[in-house]
Amino acid sequence: MRINEHFAKLPAGYLFPEIGRRVRAYQAAHPDAKVIRLGIGDVTEPLAPAITEAMHAAVDEMSKRETFRGYGPEQGYDFLVEAIRAHDYAARGVEIAADEIFVSDGSKCDSGNVQELFALGAKVAVTDPVYPVYVDSNVMAGRTPAAGADGRYPGFVYLVGSEANGFQPEPPAEPVDVVYLCSPNNPTGTIMTRAQLERWVAWARETDALIIFDAAYESYIADPAVPHSIFEIPGARDHAIELRSFSKRAGFTGVRCAFMVVPKTVMGVDPSGKRVALNALWSRRHSTKFNGASYIVQRGAAAAYSPAGLAQTTAQIAFYMENARFLREGLAAAGFTVFGGVHAPYLWLRTTGGMGSWDFFDRLLDRARVVGTPGAGFGPAGEGYFRLSAFNSRANVDEAIERIRAAFA
Amino acid sequence: MRINEHFAKLPAGYLFPEIGRRVRAYQAAHPDAKVIRLGIGDVTEPLAPAITEAMHAAVDEMSKRETFRGYGPEQGYDFLVEAIRAHDYAARGVEIAADEIFVSDGSKCDSGNVQELFALGAKVAVTDPVYPVYVDSNVMAGRTPAAGADGRYPGFVYLVGSEANGFQPEPPAEPVDVVYLCSPNNPTGTIMTRAQLERWVAWARETDALIIFDAAYESYIADPAVPHSIFEIPGARDHAIELRSFSKRAGFTGVRCAFMVVPKTVMGVDPSGKRVALNALWSRRHSTKFNGASYIVQRGAAAAYSPAGLAQTTAQIAFYMENARFLREGLAAAGFTVFGGVHAPYLWLRTTGGMGSWDFFDRLLDRARVVGTPGAGFGPAGEGYFRLSAFNSRANVDEAIERIRAAFA
Repeated sequence: MRINEHFAKLPAGYLFPEIGRRVRAYQAAHPDAKVIRLGIGDVTEPLAPAITEAMHAAVDEMSKRETFRGYGPEQGYDFLVEAIRAHDYAARGVEIAADEIFVSDGSKCDSGNVQELFALGAKVAVTDPVYPVYVDSNVMAGRTPAAGADGRYPGFVYLVGSEANGFQPEPPAEPVDVVYLCSPNNPTGTIMTRAQLERWVAWARETDALIIFDAAYESYIADPAVPHSIFEIPGARDHAIELRSFSKRAGFTGVRCAFMVVPKTVMGVDPSGKRVALNALWSRRHSTKFNGASYIVQRGAAAAYSPAGLAQTTAQIAFYMENARFLREGLAAAGFTVFGGVHAPYLWLRTTGGMGSWDFFDRLLDRARVVGTPGAGFGPAGEGYFRLSAFNSRANVDEAIERIRAAFA
Repeated sequence: MRINEHFAKLPAGYLFPEIGRRVRAYQAAHPDAKVIRLGIGDVTEPLAPAITEAMHAAVDEMSKRETFRGYGPEQGYDFLVEAIRAHDYAARGVEIAADEIFVSDGSKCDSGNVQELFALGAKVAVTDPVYPVYVDSNVMAGRTPAAGADGRYPGFVYLVGSEANGFQPEPPAEPVDVVYLCSPNNPTGTIMTRAQLERWVAWARETDALIIFDAAYESYIADPAVPHSIFEIPGARDHAIELRSFSKRAGFTGVRCAFMVVPKTVMGVDPSGKRVALNALWSRRHSTKFNGASYIVQRGAAAAYSPAGLAQTTAQIAFYMENARFLREGLAAAGFTVFGGVHAPYLWLRTTGGMGSWDFFDRLLDRARVVGTPGAGFGPAGEGYFRLSAFNSRANVDEAIERIRAAFA
């Protein structure tokens, strides 16, 4: 059996399993150490009561013949799709049709799978630093030769985020087919303003490119002037696909639900130059390789839009954002240079004294028993930086600040 | 944006959405007609009490900070993996390691995604008739030119199932990299004996090929001499990947849980001829593009292995198999030639008078208000046949038999 040889171009492990390995090794050697995890962006607050009530009710429905549900619609149940349309789009002045929304079991899957729409020869642009799934899924599909000594794949166009540009790189000068953007950004916690989004949409229109817009963290936006959806920018619905998730907005990291919006007006071109609607292609992909998200999970997700669900999840997000503020202020007071953490649950620290980011990881784990994520894990431009997440209890956040301060004093 | 041009090689719609479209059109025109659905293989019995109890308990855990679970292990929780090892494998004398089992959100996803392991140039063999996902996912990946006038893709090797071979074709004479096999078979409801499985494993060993063995219906096997797993055949663990699902064994079509077994001894070859373990590749794929099945769902799946869960789900399967027996006997008495339905919830009818299978579909819908699945939807060799599923209430099954008898009298 001849294997897909492109897997060999990937680094040995996906970032988070490698972090898990190092933490397990540390804990095996230090069984009494109380480690505080601010690494992987995983929520810690329990599900909102409105959501668990809806899930209990759904389990009860599944336990009776009259109300049992088997296969659901692959795109998602109407009750959830309509809630998404109304709350996430219509309420912000954006008209999205029901058949432009595709409910899934998670944004990691969606961001890994979306590249199946692209030609093998499509030129892909990614930011650096970047959420690794965008890169790895395109490597596995064979869209680039092996990485060079600098850790970069020659097949991709890299858009470097730096302190100088506020970690918001400009659109590329060279032609690309597609760019992945993420705002509020994972990993830097920084955000794109309306003007920056407008520049990207104008670029996509000028160059007939596609924007994959990952808005998994949109509910953490604090400034009412900042768009939550790229579709709030006129013209975007001809050139963008948007990814949304319930993971961080409703604590669904272990529950699994997300959705992707593919407007019917977004077109690609086939080899003959004919324009083809990506909505039809994604619909075919979704119905061929996916069988709908769990009914119980979809009922829980829909409950996040109920008045009680909105109030409860909004309070959770406010709690995490208070954590982010404590982290930001505490670490700044301790002398760290800190980015992000205002409209996102992530903080992006400059490591002290130009320390390598994996060295910083090991030092933080060893001296402070705090787990974060090395910036280099998000690409070469992340070297010298470090991501901390605001997902934890207040007590742990306070203690983490004290420990980091002491470890680097 | 240059699109994946291979999507255009697919037929216009995936089979089941096309059936859904025709049924909706019929119901719109005949709003009072009581349609009985024996088409898509969807369960109708409610979830077993042991399963819903476990899911309620899991929802409660998710509602409290101390027991809340965020991201789980991508491969699945130990409590489920261990139950699978013990009940599905060790109890049948098969040793499977925990890190050879990959829990997912459904076998449709697994059977669509598994081809990401194959080289683009890998030669794929499929049976005809066949579960369409095996074919379509390889078409979308670009492993074949467009289909010919006969509906067959020139890039694939087709193994024709016919009445003459009991719908169990022999291994191919020409070299192939990989073959998809499904037993108990979807769509024909027929089964591979131990001797037939042994012949396939011997062929795979001789030709260094890979078998993708889809055992989604194994719990419907009635004959204790028939293997439930291909790994019951000596040597198979060097040459096979197995797919299993909770959909039909525990009524999870709307709940979503499945798993794939990739023994560490299964090897492929890279372009330099080096042997590479598929387990490592699949682990990388799974952890890069998937984020674990829902915790609540995994708790429900594990409960299907508890003593109560086993008893309750076994009774459900026995109920469906009684339906299958009624259908088989009733339709045979009405003059139909019927295959399958003994170790599988599917019956495979020969259409009357050589009628085309979509014509038979329309006639059955129009005259008997019964929905089935046209054999041609599973490949050219399915033309002239028709699939009925045994998933329904006893009353509906009895009525369907009467209506079909009357419609074709």
